[in-house]
Amino acid sequence: MAEYPKKVWLNGEILDAGSARISVFDRGFLFGDGIYEVMARIGGRFFYEKAHLKRLDTCLQKIKIDFDTRILTKEIPKLLQASDLFENDCLLYIQVSRGVAPRKHAFPHDIPPTVMMYVTPKILPDINSVNASVSIMNDFRWSRCDIKTTSLLGNVMANESAVQQGCYEMLFLRDDIVTEASHCNVFFVKDGTVYTHPANELILDGITRQVVLELCSQLNFEVREEGISKQRIPQMDEAFLTGTSTQIASIKQIDQHIYYTGDEIGEVTKALQHAFLALKNKE
Amino acid sequence: MAEYPKKVWLNGEILDAGSARISVFDRGFLFGDGIYEVMARIGGRFFYEKAHLKRLDTCLQKIKIDFDTRILTKEIPKLLQASDLFENDCLLYIQVSRGVAPRKHAFPHDIPPTVMMYVTPKILPDINSVNASVSIMNDFRWSRCDIKTTSLLGNVMANESAVQQGCYEMLFLRDDIVTEASHCNVFFVKDGTVYTHPANELILDGITRQVVLELCSQLNFEVREEGISKQRIPQMDEAFLTGTSTQIASIKQIDQHIYYTGDEIGEVTKALQHAFLALKNKE
Repeated sequence: MAEYPKKVWLNGEILDAGSARISVFDRGFLFGDGIYEVMARIGGRFFYEKAHLKRLDTCLQKIKIDFDTRILTKEIPKLLQASDLFENDCLLYIQVSRGVAPRKHAFPHDIPPTVMMYVTPKILPDINSVNASVSIMNDFRWSRCDIKTTSLLGNVMANESAVQQGCYEMLFLRDDIVTEASHCNVFFVKDGTVYTHPANELILDGITRQVVLELCSQLNFEVREEGISKQRIPQMDEAFLTGTSTQIASIKQIDQHIYYTGDEIGEVTKALQHAFLALKNKE
Repeated sequence: MAEYPKKVWLNGEILDAGSARISVFDRGFLFGDGIYEVMARIGGRFFYEKAHLKRLDTCLQKIKIDFDTRILTKEIPKLLQASDLFENDCLLYIQVSRGVAPRKHAFPHDIPPTVMMYVTPKILPDINSVNASVSIMNDFRWSRCDIKTTSLLGNVMANESAVQQGCYEMLFLRDDIVTEASHCNVFFVKDGTVYTHPANELILDGITRQVVLELCSQLNFEVREEGISKQRIPQMDEAFLTGTSTQIASIKQIDQHIYYTGDEIGEVTKALQHAFLALKNKE
């Protein structure tokens, strides 16, 4: 069960979570007009902090929210201290919305964005032992999934549907090609080659996705950034999910197709999980 | 320039607009997980109030937010009184989000929704004299446009792009077929027949759209609920937009194709505008 954090950093102030309030005219509330980011603190450092902040920056630029993310670097340590989590593993959530203005679709200009952050304690397992059963559906979301927006109702509905089916995640098919999942990226393995959808506008280019591609290169696994069609799912040897809090999670079953019975995990998935663990210990 | 309302009704309380605040953990803010509705008060009554509240109800059911919209009927008059707008023409905005909970994609159950309403003074013209220039782009939004969600970033980006081009609206093409606009429905006229996209999951079935279809029937205009392809735009005789605050607005130009020079307006558009005015005076 998810819990509220102790403290919330809101526009420069550190508040008790229960006191962190925004105007109902915040465009994050009226229009889902905002960007978010999540990063994991492991062993006293944020894992790939620069890459996460760079992506936040890029996404803000894509929707033309003018905010200098560099100020966060100074503020995050204060939030960690106030939350009594400076020394602990935790997840940091950052959200930037366009700000507060009378309701009108087109952008207001020259208003300050609303910036909100909080940290929750989270000890990620060394290796994610989940062997996930996942469901699959046609991707009904927008075609700018490269933007990490808070307009997330599509993802929320898909994730809820997966949970209702007792599944860990919902995979999406666009024109019969697997793109990504409701809050993870998806990989397949066939004959030692690792497949994942190219980082175009149909997927969010996850930081963990990028790390896994780098690890594949180090481990001499051939990589093809190529979407796998629904028809090819049963022909694949392995499948796994990646994400900031998911890390690397083996997929046991996609709808009716079973990859593994019991706790079995594919060789390539396992090798990547161990390489990812080594990287966390090194970073 | 849009302005803030005087008062906001928030979860049963009537507050000054500046004091109407919600938790940063409201799922409307974190996920765009909510539904909204707008209706016009004209001559002391809400125009098609039942149809608007029914649509709100239907949309809430579609995303499984459990809220009895019947309570609003008692509360709206209190808000109008507090806002000094009981006797004035105005626009009512209603938003219902799933409520406040620690952040997690799948729905929390058994939490009360956040309900927010406000009214702003707005005297709609008898007939909308706008003769709109509109732009057109591929529809990059999700494919559940029938849900009037607050996850509106796609609509916001499209509308902003139209405004930047000096246009009144942005039309959307899905597989080369005109579906709707960023916050209006779209109609075409050819040889006296009125065309508009069928009310499926690709458009929001506007209340004004429904009223116009009814008026077409009364005026003996043949109607085809059929999408017009991009290629057929130049072959059409007339085009117009409909919406709660737009009412019926003639389209003068779509991208490079010019329907009218000067203040000219097509016969069918004009007849529908006058029939709509008569209906407002009667209702």
